[in-house]
Amino acid sequence: MDDIHLKLFEKPQLRDPIFIEGLPGVGNVGKLAAEHLIDQLKAVKFAEIISKYFPPQVLVKDDGLIKLVSNEFYYVKRPDNSNDIIFLVGDYQGISPEGQYLLSDRVLSFISEFGVRRIFTLGGYGIGKMIEKPRVLGAATDLELVEEMKALGVVFSKGEPGSGIVGASGLLLGLGMNYGMRSVCLMGETSGYLADPRAAEAVLNVLVKVVEVKIDYEALRHKAQQIDQLTARIRDLETQQGAEPGSERREDLGYIG
Amino acid sequence: MDDIHLKLFEKPQLRDPIFIEGLPGVGNVGKLAAEHLIDQLKAVKFAEIISKYFPPQVLVKDDGLIKLVSNEFYYVKRPDNSNDIIFLVGDYQGISPEGQYLLSDRVLSFISEFGVRRIFTLGGYGIGKMIEKPRVLGAATDLELVEEMKALGVVFSKGEPGSGIVGASGLLLGLGMNYGMRSVCLMGETSGYLADPRAAEAVLNVLVKVVEVKIDYEALRHKAQQIDQLTARIRDLETQQGAEPGSERREDLGYIG
Amino acid sequence: MDDIHLKLFEKPQLRDPIFIEGLPGVGNVGKLAAEHLIDQLKAVKFAEIISKYFPPQVLVKDDGLIKLVSNEFYYVKRPDNSNDIIFLVGDYQGISPEGQYLLSDRVLSFISEFGVRRIFTLGGYGIGKMIEKPRVLGAATDLELVEEMKALGVVFSKGEPGSGIVGASGLLLGLGMNYGMRSVCLMGETSGYLADPRAAEAVLNVLVKVVEVKIDYEALRHKAQQIDQLTARIRDLETQQGAEPGSERREDLGYIG
Amino acid sequence: MDDIHLKLFEKPQLRDPIFIEGLPGVGNVGKLAAEHLIDQLKAVKFAEIISKYFPPQVLVKDDGLIKLVSNEFYYVKRPDNSNDIIFLVGDYQGISPEGQYLLSDRVLSFISEFGVRRIFTLGGYGIGKMIEKPRVLGAATDLELVEEMKALGVVFSKGEPGSGIVGASGLLLGLGMNYGMRSVCLMGETSGYLADPRAAEAVLNVLVKVVEVKIDYEALRHKAQQIDQLTARIRDLETQQGAEPGSERREDLGYIG
Repeated sequence: MDDIHLKLFEKPQLRDPIFIEGLPGVGNVGKLAAEHLIDQLKAVKFAEIISKYFPPQVLVKDDGLIKLVSNEFYYVKRPDNSNDIIFLVGDYQGISPEGQYLLSDRVLSFISEFGVRRIFTLGGYGIGKMIEKPRVLGAATDLELVEEMKALGVVFSKGEPGSGIVGASGLLLGLGMNYGMRSVCLMGETSGYLADPRAAEAVLNVLVKVVEVKIDYEALRHKAQQIDQLTARIRDLETQQGAEPGSERREDLGYIG
Repeated sequence: MDDIHLKLFEKPQLRDPIFIEGLPGVGNVGKLAAEHLIDQLKAVKFAEIISKYFPPQVLVKDDGLIKLVSNEFYYVKRPDNSNDIIFLVGDYQGISPEGQYLLSDRVLSFISEFGVRRIFTLGGYGIGKMIEKPRVLGAATDLELVEEMKALGVVFSKGEPGSGIVGASGLLLGLGMNYGMRSVCLMGETSGYLADPRAAEAVLNVLVKVVEVKIDYEALRHKAQQIDQLTARIRDLETQQGAEPGSERREDLGYIG
Repeated sequence: MDDIHLKLFEKPQLRDPIFIEGLPGVGNVGKLAAEHLIDQLKAVKFAEIISKYFPPQVLVKDDGLIKLVSNEFYYVKRPDNSNDIIFLVGDYQGISPEGQYLLSDRVLSFISEFGVRRIFTLGGYGIGKMIEKPRVLGAATDLELVEEMKALGVVFSKGEPGSGIVGASGLLLGLGMNYGMRSVCLMGETSGYLADPRAAEAVLNVLVKVVEVKIDYEALRHKAQQIDQLTARIRDLETQQGAEPGSERREDLGYIG
Repeated sequence: MDDIHLKLFEKPQLRDPIFIEGLPGVGNVGKLAAEHLIDQLKAVKFAEIISKYFPPQVLVKDDGLIKLVSNEFYYVKRPDNSNDIIFLVGDYQGISPEGQYLLSDRVLSFISEFGVRRIFTLGGYGIGKMIEKPRVLGAATDLELVEEMKALGVVFSKGEPGSGIVGASGLLLGLGMNYGMRSVCLMGETSGYLADPRAAEAVLNVLVKVVEVKIDYEALRHKAQQIDQLTARIRDLETQQGAEPGSERREDLGYIG
């Protein structure tokens, strides 16, 4: 078994593809955004990664079938004069620092075969409190991209995020420079407590302008409402019982993402 | 020293062998079940694994002899028209995520040499409270197997187990698909606090129908009674002393498995 | 991707260079001292290391550009009859024990190519309380160096540091002996709670005598004043509110370094 | 840098050497015993191991010189008809499970070059309370050795040690079987709180009968008295102040070993 095993189901011919990453992370913002875009654009799965750097487990689906933890690549072909897109989504990120580096580098070497020169990584920026109108923060590999993103309303704020960008959303940018790729990380502001479809929508609002697609946000908004209802119900229960918000409940909410 | 060192004591000729895994885990259900079946079928040890992925220790047996931590393979030859069986039991699972993946993959490549096409992994499903009649939950690699198991009373319940199947019982299923093996995980419901021979019996009740053997549950029931007595004694002590159940006591009970 | 990837931007010709390490550590003393010296001597960056042994993240700079976590080499050429100098500074040390060893050894094999025979590693010696006049403690690879350092006011005190020297500042000395390098570790006494420019100045006071340079301490003293002001402000707040010093505030202070 | 780097200073010709291991562990019993025997027999250091599996640090000696963390081999040649002896002592054991396995295996392959067929590993058996007359517990690789040790007063007690033998003292026995080596682990009973020279003496009392040497216990008894005095002083202080025994103090005591 390879340390990182990449299975290729199909080798699509792609025109100047943009790469979009949305792996699990703070508020699952990146994952929610990327998966929503995959659904909307009817992107096609064409490769997957399994690895000893992922958690040693299988997931059990509703029909009783198991699924090995993986990261998955999708592509979508676009009309003339547009870039095709490659997506990366998945169940988990690598769980060791070394695994994070090696997985990100493997992803980059794989997408470089398709001629990727532009990367968008999507994530959440946890601020520890509920927020009405989430900003989208940015970080990039060159100043031209910073300006491009500012023009689309992305906030570049000194000292935010103070601790840098941890995990794949950061490493793909940093290591991608070795592959000559120009990259942007878009981070939707989120409490970080719950899966946050509203932060995902904020991120997508920016991204759709760059990749020039039109999408429908209904499914994402429906998820947001479900979470609102759950949050409200829990608050009611807590008010009645005078209880503290239980960590278990928060986890339950997290699964909606 | 190889990272994973497999010692082969004998190379048996096996007819279409089924593979049954019962390594330590929640409630030691899988281990209790597989070891009981090995005893009942007088299976023969034919290989063992030692590895740097196991805890760095030796066990001391009652006669003062030491035993390196290992995983062990047993086989049993069966009458005409039945599948032979290979068992995997052991002292520990791998203790790092990477070790878990590499050990499971090594096991699969080894058993594939004997022509294994069907796997049953046995485990516990911890529910955090004592239970009278443990259900047996299932997960499988294809829908046909799901139906077969349902017909034998195995429960496939949406959202159970919610967190997936961690460790060898999960990975052997997931990675086994790469070897063309069809697999089922059987999980006996258990509190998870103690070694649970009753959950092991529930799992065996299903398994014996699949592999078509008759076994005697006396030894397993005797263990269950021992644990009941210990539990009762501890409850008495706690009632007398008004004490909380000590974690040490629970550990003591665990050793019965 | 190499486990440790060293990028060489320029290969300077250096005359009998001394190597000075100042990576992050207790009170960031070594990092503050080495970076100050780099500024003062206008040293030039000529190589950097990225590695899977560093934390898996990028830093975001004030202009919104990202920077992969790295360690960086600088050199400075000096007038006749003086040793040239190579510096090592960086964002982080290796985060696993194995990474620490392998990174230190890689650094040593790299600097040996330039003919380094003398090493100074700079660090802090945390004593857990504020201190007015920090001593500079020493450790070395031979007794002649011990005597040389004593003559410059460095304290060699039996039992200090009791636990040895952890990380790059220690390993470069120990592993450097395999490369025939003679080394000294200089440790400035520090509370260890905050970035400590005063301890850095104390260390530099010794170091400048060895490498025979004249430097200006203004920038370092300015940093010290900033930290004093912050500390004072926090004390005031605590007095007003009767609050305990928050761990967050301490972290904030740490960022000044 | 090799993962495990063994430096050989001298290659002695040894007659049927016995191998004795005394690395740090519970109560530092094995280390105290082996180092005392090395002193008494004037054994000669002939090899050492440095490794990325050790803690990434150097120790600072009283003269200000540093010493890389290592494990060290000593030998002693003995009069006619006696076995020569190889000792292994050191600053630390491997700090990861994998390191433990790989270091033990490297030690075994090294000593096998000298024809070692018999191993004694020395350790402590922590029982969590002070003890007047420590027993010496044993574990071995064959029943003949068990009987030999019983005849020398070693206790083989069902269920002790219940959790097996962790670390080098266990692995050298278990992995040594692959090298055809017959081995005994001798464990001196100890509270485990402090370095315990009395438990070390108990272990040596057995060992000297096997290797047929006469030694003087004065230095070891002196250490025991020092620890008694420190313990007494601390008890006095605690009585005066009504204080709990501080963990720091215990650590201080540990350094005497």
